[in-house]
Amino acid sequence: MNEHEHYMRLALDNARAMKGQTDPNPLVGSVIVNDSRIVGFGAHMKAGEPHAEIHALRMAGEKARGGTIYVTLEPCSHHGRTGPCAEAIVQAGLKKVVVAALDPNPLVAGRGIEILRNAGIEVETGILEEESRRMNEVFNKYIVSKLPFVTLKSAVTLDGKIATASSDSKWITSEAARREVHEMRNENSGILVGVSTVIHDDPELTSRIPNGRNPIRIILDSTLRIPLAAKVVTDGQAPTWVFTTERHDTDKRHALETAGVKVFVTKGEQHVDLQEAMEILGQSFVSSVLLEGGGEINAAFLEQRLIDKLVLYIAPKAIGGKLAPSFLEGVGAEKMKDAIEFTDVSMTQAGKDFKFTGYPVYREA
Amino acid sequence: MNEHEHYMRLALDNARAMKGQTDPNPLVGSVIVNDSRIVGFGAHMKAGEPHAEIHALRMAGEKARGGTIYVTLEPCSHHGRTGPCAEAIVQAGLKKVVVAALDPNPLVAGRGIEILRNAGIEVETGILEEESRRMNEVFNKYIVSKLPFVTLKSAVTLDGKIATASSDSKWITSEAARREVHEMRNENSGILVGVSTVIHDDPELTSRIPNGRNPIRIILDSTLRIPLAAKVVTDGQAPTWVFTTERHDTDKRHALETAGVKVFVTKGEQHVDLQEAMEILGQSFVSSVLLEGGGEINAAFLEQRLIDKLVLYIAPKAIGGKLAPSFLEGVGAEKMKDAIEFTDVSMTQAGKDFKFTGYPVYREA
Repeated sequence: MNEHEHYMRLALDNARAMKGQTDPNPLVGSVIVNDSRIVGFGAHMKAGEPHAEIHALRMAGEKARGGTIYVTLEPCSHHGRTGPCAEAIVQAGLKKVVVAALDPNPLVAGRGIEILRNAGIEVETGILEEESRRMNEVFNKYIVSKLPFVTLKSAVTLDGKIATASSDSKWITSEAARREVHEMRNENSGILVGVSTVIHDDPELTSRIPNGRNPIRIILDSTLRIPLAAKVVTDGQAPTWVFTTERHDTDKRHALETAGVKVFVTKGEQHVDLQEAMEILGQSFVSSVLLEGGGEINAAFLEQRLIDKLVLYIAPKAIGGKLAPSFLEGVGAEKMKDAIEFTDVSMTQAGKDFKFTGYPVYREA
Repeated sequence: MNEHEHYMRLALDNARAMKGQTDPNPLVGSVIVNDSRIVGFGAHMKAGEPHAEIHALRMAGEKARGGTIYVTLEPCSHHGRTGPCAEAIVQAGLKKVVVAALDPNPLVAGRGIEILRNAGIEVETGILEEESRRMNEVFNKYIVSKLPFVTLKSAVTLDGKIATASSDSKWITSEAARREVHEMRNENSGILVGVSTVIHDDPELTSRIPNGRNPIRIILDSTLRIPLAAKVVTDGQAPTWVFTTERHDTDKRHALETAGVKVFVTKGEQHVDLQEAMEILGQSFVSSVLLEGGGEINAAFLEQRLIDKLVLYIAPKAIGGKLAPSFLEGVGAEKMKDAIEFTDVSMTQAGKDFKFTGYPVYREA
């Protein structure tokens, strides 16, 4: 690890420590170094409060002059509550700026850097860029597209199954892995399943961890088969939104709405229009969705390129059987070259199970 | 790592360095320590030559007296070419013996230890026992059961598929993983596939690495559909053995035998009797079999509890599709509690892919 990475890593660590408290702003960290000593550091802690660079500059005071500032995200060029950070850096007399990632919005990316360079400051970009980008992956997608960042999460056996042929799925993974899933629910604004999951399992779809924040429960249900007695309808633990089609029953819709469920009708004929549903969610400030669907819904999302990230908990078990459902059903790839590849993959231990993380690469159609 | 593990690890490393050259004997290593200094070490290098302890004792000479000897396998109690090692240890005046694993044969396990203890030597067992047992896993099964140690190897996607619905499988995994498979072929006495693999892919089933030793090619073929023009029949690169049933065609059998193929008829009615086939292989000194079958053959082996080890190369890809074949087809588990669990599992990187290794736990029927 070179010097730049060393300081940038500290900035990233401090940024990440604010996870969950900067919404709707991204995580950002900053470190100022002068004469080989750290003279200031900071992180963005809350929307409306100073950006990371401002905290670091205040801490460093006069010692910032002639130094190098590390920032995990390009300093802003717009006038917010604390003025543009790029100008503050110029005024503090920094000699060099090291940036991990540019502004996620391609329309403004590079403007902060431009201000700095015009002022004669040396700027270096791309240090631990990938890490910075991944840290704000939800923000980065949502701010640009107004569509939620979708994470497909599934618990599978080594042969990719999510249940036996008789639909038994309790339990595929160990308790440690199941606990992690509740962490993921806590971090996502919405959780999405198909109505068959509700009918079959009657799940609560809540985050059962201490101080866990429950995501909005989103159900895909083309004809409103959802039972009025389902926990997600009656328990009041979190909002429940149901997406349906014109094929739905109007009386059932009224009954659901009376029970406090929000119902959205999409233009899909046979199935709920997933693209439209994602647009509606984005417009409703749902910036992230945890997809815990069955094999058919998962496959439809993947085929329509709506999955941003895959998290698989893989149990060291085998179910076997032609008819046992896999986490991806549907039609599937015709040839190996059509298979979806994942990038930036990792495989770690999660209790007795393994956790795979990766990002799908969608080729040009 | 304590002192005992430290020296035992050296003994294990030296034992493992002889992999492939001790057949039919197991890998064994030994280290002698006196007054905190290593005074001798050895390994069994070739059948008919001295055991590991004898090499170490010779190297140590008089310095063995009063010392501690580490051996990865219980010293033998039988009179071989160099006499029982347990007695040689007694005569050399060792004070203590540290053993990793007992003799794999339960009928003689403990006899070497008994000789040592009767002579007043302190004996400690079980140091890195698991590692020693795994190192000789093939030997340990074969010596006791006279059945080959079967390793099911498959290359799968994250959803457990071995091909697309249109049977395209080139390639699931990257070159690095495919190269490792040729190493595995080199280490196994036999490689087993179903006749449909031969008909569909016409593979050579050889070990394409420098100085690679080709395993015996074993084909399951209940009616002798194997083409006479198949590479495994014509190329002469390694013996080819075909297992069939009474349903086979006699003329085809003669044609195959004329081409140099060995044909075994098992008592199976619909399919080849796998248990009988394994017994025949064991009697024919095939101590290890690499199973590279399709989903049906793999599932049959697993259901009949004939798999000793599972090695899965998992590509970070998804094929999807209800009809794409998985590495385990068949009927599968009825309930999650019937799923096969794997123990001593590991997940490592293999090029761009992941490599899972585990040992199935067969519950009492």
